Amino acid sequence: MFELYIANKNYSSWSLRPWVLMKALEIPFNEHLMPFEGGTGASHDTFIRFSPSGLVPCLVDDDLAVWDSLAIVEYLAEQHTNVWPSDKSARAWARSATAEMHSGFGALRDECPMNCGVRVALDSVSAKLKADVARLDILWQQGLERFGGPFLAGKRFTAVDAFYAPVAFRVQTFNLSLSDASQAYVEHLLALPAMKAWYQAALEEPWRESMHEADTLKNSTLTADYRAS
Amino acid sequence: MFELYIANKNYSSWSLRPWVLMKALEIPFNEHLMPFEGGTGASHDTFIRFSPSGLVPCLVDDDLAVWDSLAIVEYLAEQHTNVWPSDKSARAWARSATAEMHSGFGALRDECPMNCGVRVALDSVSAKLKADVARLDILWQQGLERFGGPFLAGKRFTAVDAFYAPVAFRVQTFNLSLSDASQAYVEHLLALPAMKAWYQAALEEPWRESMHEADTLKNSTLTADYRAS
Repeated sequence: MFELYIANKNYSSWSLRPWVLMKALEIPFNEHLMPFEGGTGASHDTFIRFSPSGLVPCLVDDDLAVWDSLAIVEYLAEQHTNVWPSDKSARAWARSATAEMHSGFGALRDECPMNCGVRVALDSVSAKLKADVARLDILWQQGLERFGGPFLAGKRFTAVDAFYAPVAFRVQTFNLSLSDASQAYVEHLLALPAMKAWYQAALEEPWRESMHEADTLKNSTLTADYRAS
Repeated sequence: MFELYIANKNYSSWSLRPWVLMKALEIPFNEHLMPFEGGTGASHDTFIRFSPSGLVPCLVDDDLAVWDSLAIVEYLAEQHTNVWPSDKSARAWARSATAEMHSGFGALRDECPMNCGVRVALDSVSAKLKADVARLDILWQQGLERFGGPFLAGKRFTAVDAFYAPVAFRVQTFNLSLSDASQAYVEHLLALPAMKAWYQAALEEPWRESMHEADTLKNSTLTADYRAS
């Protein structure tokens, strides 16, 4: 059985990616949720016990640790042919779009951190954030149009959707403005059973992490908080 | 024939990765070097003609564009079994280490940008840079020890070495201090025919890019410049 180590569902966008992929594709795993412990140092010291980089997510398969979200995807793809699209061209597109998110969209990640349970209004939109959202919107529209939707690379949920799943929560939290096609994709993602289960669990988490909370509000104003406690 | 679009060999660390991999594995391709054009906007407008993200590197295979270094690696791996280690455990390690570089080591990339032809002395070393170099050193030592060297995942040059190849140039330029094992790995990389060819071409480039030059010197002092003009 796979052991998947993740952090808080409310905050950890990297954790969501392999989690939602494995749930959507019905790949069985044991979940180990290790909540963040304030400063990065404390979490690192805990996470390093199972993850060589001291970061989550980390997939453990017997004595083998796979410590990055994209490496996990490719590790699973060796055993499950439905992780990527079956068509060569769609697969190349999906891998490119996935890798672009893995190393890019810095402003989106920095200025709109994932915080599933709250809603905020951005006080201002930086030029870099505007550029990231514009690029995201074009990329999504290209995929949806070229492969026919409702997912980015066609009819099935694949790893590229898992990689953009956290963006759906960011769009919801920060009320980002997208084209109709991209907005419909966001709503399609948010309505998936796996995404609803993650969201519900995020709302029920008791932890408030001061660093993540401050990050969320550094350039925005809270309008709603749907978390349980 | 593959068409590989890259930017300046002196500066473009992302371009080096697929280039050195394809050279080292003797995968034939046509090289298209598109020099940076000052501001990011101008380069983006040129690059977007062949790369959907407006970024390099981009591999074009007939009508198919693969626009990210890691996506290129996986695209090539579908056709060439020597892109990754053949052993499952070594391959999982290599993919994890590769992905960690792809999305991480932000301080190393930001504070020690690749600038092959110059040598500098760092004015100071930030805590984040220190942490990145320490992590790099541990990761390399683990790979070299576990798989026996001289490459990170064993006897052969694979994609994980291609991903850390730019770091060899950064170590040389910024005179970063590493363990003996890691330093020997850097020297092994720098002595590869493909790395020497890239380096020589970088020295001979006529272009000086003000943004990249300023980035190199923002926290360091020039001690040597081996470039031709």
